Amino acid sequence: MNEVFREQIKVLDCTIRDGGLINNHDFDHKFVRAVYKALSEAGVDYMEVGYKNSKKLFPGKEFGTWKFCDDEDIKKVIDGIESDMKISVMVDVGRVDMDDVKPRKDSPVSMIRVASYVKDIDKAIALVNHFSGKGYETTVNIMAISRALDNELNEALHQLEEESKAQVVYIVDSFGALYQESTEFLIKKAKSILKTKEVGMHAHNNQQLAFGNTIEAIIHNANYVDGTVYGLGRAAGNCPLELLIGFLKNPKFDIRPILDLISKEFIPLRERMEWGYIIPYAITGMLDEHPKTAIALRESEKKENYREFYDSLAGADLD
Amino acid sequence: MNEVFREQIKVLDCTIRDGGLINNHDFDHKFVRAVYKALSEAGVDYMEVGYKNSKKLFPGKEFGTWKFCDDEDIKKVIDGIESDMKISVMVDVGRVDMDDVKPRKDSPVSMIRVASYVKDIDKAIALVNHFSGKGYETTVNIMAISRALDNELNEALHQLEEESKAQVVYIVDSFGALYQESTEFLIKKAKSILKTKEVGMHAHNNQQLAFGNTIEAIIHNANYVDGTVYGLGRAAGNCPLELLIGFLKNPKFDIRPILDLISKEFIPLRERMEWGYIIPYAITGMLDEHPKTAIALRESEKKENYREFYDSLAGADLD
Repeated sequence: MNEVFREQIKVLDCTIRDGGLINNHDFDHKFVRAVYKALSEAGVDYMEVGYKNSKKLFPGKEFGTWKFCDDEDIKKVIDGIESDMKISVMVDVGRVDMDDVKPRKDSPVSMIRVASYVKDIDKAIALVNHFSGKGYETTVNIMAISRALDNELNEALHQLEEESKAQVVYIVDSFGALYQESTEFLIKKAKSILKTKEVGMHAHNNQQLAFGNTIEAIIHNANYVDGTVYGLGRAAGNCPLELLIGFLKNPKFDIRPILDLISKEFIPLRERMEWGYIIPYAITGMLDEHPKTAIALRESEKKENYREFYDSLAGADLD
Repeated sequence: MNEVFREQIKVLDCTIRDGGLINNHDFDHKFVRAVYKALSEAGVDYMEVGYKNSKKLFPGKEFGTWKFCDDEDIKKVIDGIESDMKISVMVDVGRVDMDDVKPRKDSPVSMIRVASYVKDIDKAIALVNHFSGKGYETTVNIMAISRALDNELNEALHQLEEESKAQVVYIVDSFGALYQESTEFLIKKAKSILKTKEVGMHAHNNQQLAFGNTIEAIIHNANYVDGTVYGLGRAAGNCPLELLIGFLKNPKFDIRPILDLISKEFIPLRERMEWGYIIPYAITGMLDEHPKTAIALRESEKKENYREFYDSLAGADLD
């Protein structure tokens, strides 16, 4: 039913990175190796394993391995597994120590993605250009785009086109608030301004639209798309990788290793970790709010009091 | 983010009808009353309570109330609850005893929807015209549309336009196989042929696209859309009503009674009944297959053997 085969499309799996926002990035090496192996067999282009955060800013033992992504930990995951897949890490503006990042030729990492709000785009460009200078593929991921003012977004996109060395700019629907028409609008806008770069889509699944919006982005020529295995990711999670792979008709992709991985690792994991279509996340999505209030609700005794939660947010919006 | 306000849009909730396919239509009156009350308060236009099947064809005690939808049972549900909502029942071609259906003026039912495959469209038209003659609003719901041959679908749509008294014709994605582009294609085709009728959309959620495809149908001027509370429905279920109500900006809709209903009735129900995004249903959706093989798998010991299930279907497709 109108599946897409376009060779330029690159699939990035960010299961461990976005899923790490639920468990302080504390997946063990065995689990991450199982994901790495399955994604490699499935023909996925990139696997994002976590954040490159400064240990000076986040000292102490409460964070797991994948908040820092030391090269040695990545090597432990990939060692001995045959793979053409590239490794990606994400950095947040203001949280990375640039000296932590070796030149690409000395690292197992191929791509660095810089996550930034529109207001921080100057800082993001400085980071991206620094990492490009070290030989990495780079991207800028514009977060919370559903809240960006149109004039500021336009300016940021022009700056990215003119001043940055990023190969890809992602539209990030952090709040899971976009419907297809807004996705179309944003992807078309990005494509029209970013004449020398690719456009990507990172969707959240608050309203069960992560896959639909990713398809919409592909229709309008986004070539970089994010997914996560079984939709794992903070709060409502992300575009399910298995659906994306089922949709893309490039014969290099094979859904079967991902199906196996879900059976063996993700069904048991879901018993211990919560993500997915849960009404409070749907509510923050439809109200275009950060999911943090819903995450707090799910950790409270009122976790199923949906109407009261809706009223608290919808009322607060009238300020 | 581009929500829609179009006064002509009518929302039909088929929670009890489609959900009844999981439990032999055996919801108790108290539960159905709770749904009726919440939907009425939410401003939903129609509530479909079940099937009007012939008791001669389905004798015995193994079927619940809502396989037959006796007027007396419907009256028990709606009695004493203030409501502007209309009641709908569905009939399948070949399973209804027309004499069971009283004239509309003597019945609590307002609308009869006839479900039909393309090949049975002549029988569907005969039924629809009979019920129209008895005063009912009528629709034809074209099932398994992802498998319809284009020439046969065209002919069926022309017949419906020229020979039937149905006010609405629904595109029914029985297998949850459609992506947005095919939904757009089918809705545009139906709109272009059915010049004197409205077009509707009934989506299944195998690939988490029920809501996205329903939005797509609305964008292309479908005015009748189906949803179910918390997506309840056979196998992967349907378009979640709460998301649809959050999207539609007609102020007559109020999401809060639905949120309450989910908290109180549907979260506990989900512990006892299975529906929703479950990998075997995603697999039948992406392979454009009836979900029956996946339903059987979920009742077996191999319920989580996704890869083997995929291979059994994908291989069988090569015949």
